Amino acid sequence: MPHTPTPMPRIADVAELAGVSVSTASKALNDTGQLREDTRTRVKEAASSLGFVPGRSGRGQADTRTYTVGLLTTDSFGRFTIPLLRGVEDALAAGRMAIILCDTRDDVLRERHYLQSLQDRRVDGLIITGRTTDPRPSIGLAIPTVYALSPSVDPTDHSVVVDESAGAAMAAEHLQAMGSRRIVHVTGPERHHSASARALAVQDVLGQSLITPPLFGHWSEEWGRHAVDMLLASHPDADAFVCGSDQIARGVTDRLREQGVDVPGQVRVTGFDNWDVMAMASRPPLTTVDMGLTELGRLAGSTLLDLVEGEADPPRRQELPPRLEVRGSSL
Amino acid sequence: MPHTPTPMPRIADVAELAGVSVSTASKALNDTGQLREDTRTRVKEAASSLGFVPGRSGRGQADTRTYTVGLLTTDSFGRFTIPLLRGVEDALAAGRMAIILCDTRDDVLRERHYLQSLQDRRVDGLIITGRTTDPRPSIGLAIPTVYALSPSVDPTDHSVVVDESAGAAMAAEHLQAMGSRRIVHVTGPERHHSASARALAVQDVLGQSLITPPLFGHWSEEWGRHAVDMLLASHPDADAFVCGSDQIARGVTDRLREQGVDVPGQVRVTGFDNWDVMAMASRPPLTTVDMGLTELGRLAGSTLLDLVEGEADPPRRQELPPRLEVRGSSL
Repeated sequence: MPHTPTPMPRIADVAELAGVSVSTASKALNDTGQLREDTRTRVKEAASSLGFVPGRSGRGQADTRTYTVGLLTTDSFGRFTIPLLRGVEDALAAGRMAIILCDTRDDVLRERHYLQSLQDRRVDGLIITGRTTDPRPSIGLAIPTVYALSPSVDPTDHSVVVDESAGAAMAAEHLQAMGSRRIVHVTGPERHHSASARALAVQDVLGQSLITPPLFGHWSEEWGRHAVDMLLASHPDADAFVCGSDQIARGVTDRLREQGVDVPGQVRVTGFDNWDVMAMASRPPLTTVDMGLTELGRLAGSTLLDLVEGEADPPRRQELPPRLEVRGSSL
Repeated sequence: MPHTPTPMPRIADVAELAGVSVSTASKALNDTGQLREDTRTRVKEAASSLGFVPGRSGRGQADTRTYTVGLLTTDSFGRFTIPLLRGVEDALAAGRMAIILCDTRDDVLRERHYLQSLQDRRVDGLIITGRTTDPRPSIGLAIPTVYALSPSVDPTDHSVVVDESAGAAMAAEHLQAMGSRRIVHVTGPERHHSASARALAVQDVLGQSLITPPLFGHWSEEWGRHAVDMLLASHPDADAFVCGSDQIARGVTDRLREQGVDVPGQVRVTGFDNWDVMAMASRPPLTTVDMGLTELGRLAGSTLLDLVEGEADPPRRQELPPRLEVRGSSL
């Protein structure tokens, strides 16, 4: 945190004085959300009495900008954050903004510490991201904020997400179009939104062509190999695997080859993520869904610039379509 | 870049006025490097006449610090930067410093642009890193700077590196200790320092136990598989593979299994990197060299704090020992 001899009043102080939550105080000051008018008035009076300046909303106060954006991730700079960050950087460079990176490591205390530090630094805006597509709590600060990949549970926040259901549907439709009719779905833990949402979409598209309920397990090659052993015993007539990730698909492809099953001649396989070290090293290379995370990062960055500069009113929720990358595993 | 109504004189201006390179000007102002005394005096006079403030050296001017560090990487936030960044963050958090991340994408113009932007932001220090262990040019700025993983070619700069030769030697010694006597080395492109330095160390340790010169190729699974096909034809009596990376080792292990060769029963295999998605998904899991990049990041961060706070005089070059992670592929 920077050296701050005279701490400024924080939104938490305003919220406490007004007797509301930080999230409500934020919405009252930003004129967003659905609040009773007297609540909004009470919060604004509390802010005024404390001398609270409502954040870096940027509208009409460009000279106070720090040209700095905080990027908060739970992904420990993992493989989802990396391509996303590249897109954010592209978009923000156009606005001459620098990115301060904060890795919360899924720790609520670290997240709070970083948010305080970023407020103290008077960042112009925040991008919040993570390793999953599960919705996450709103941070509820009076700073322009965009949630990327992991949307906010609060529909009045600005979230940019990938339509992963559409991605899973694309893979399933592709297998049907290629002629597969006895299809299975092997994916990650059911409690993960990425697994449950993709499984629903696959079931919707395939109907009777899905010959067994989705198999939920782990996001690993080992689970892919185990699933093949189970399915060759119980459903030896399966002619295609829709997999929930490239790691699973790689395990499936390896095990099928080891069991003498030709991919794609006898069984077609699709993955999800287009993670090059998995998809390209697979034999054959994997047909897979690319979520377009760099594109998503660009959209997050440009949406944040719109909010900071106050020149446009971006939609609260923006959803990007993924695309299917067709390779040898499904032809 | 931030809004800067009155641009400050830059070290390039000082260098131009004094008729020296930026790198020389930096050394003169920092009292480092080996320079003639009249050169040093000329640079200091030029700085004084321009009103140049010599960087964020921090000595005795803690109140002007921005508590911000620029981290410049060529690795596009890849898998080498990720663990390193985690360590840098650990060390700098202790000094209440935030990290501004800049991805140069191996582009000299991007690098120059970012360095200018970070100077304009008056960062307290810089950490320069990349995806290779090849030495890189000095940036030559009058800002405390630490080079991590990729050292500076200038021995008066501060570099923290991993002793990768020691790592390769550890793997080779381990195979000898396990009883292997007919060993081969399969690695990446000879022009990469990582490949040539490790190959030399392996040759030194193994002597006559290395039954063929190192095989240089690519950092890929496919190259590992091809190398097995070549070596099973030319040296069917090989009893161990020292591999230059985990990706190569995984390809080697897969191909040996497919050819009916038992790992580790007939042939032992070691990798390099301890990259979990490769090392743990391999069958059996890989014995491999862990470069300790998070530890290296911590050392880079604490060295930079020492330089910024001016309370210690860290060595110009610090080398960390890697460690061998022993798993099923070599037992």
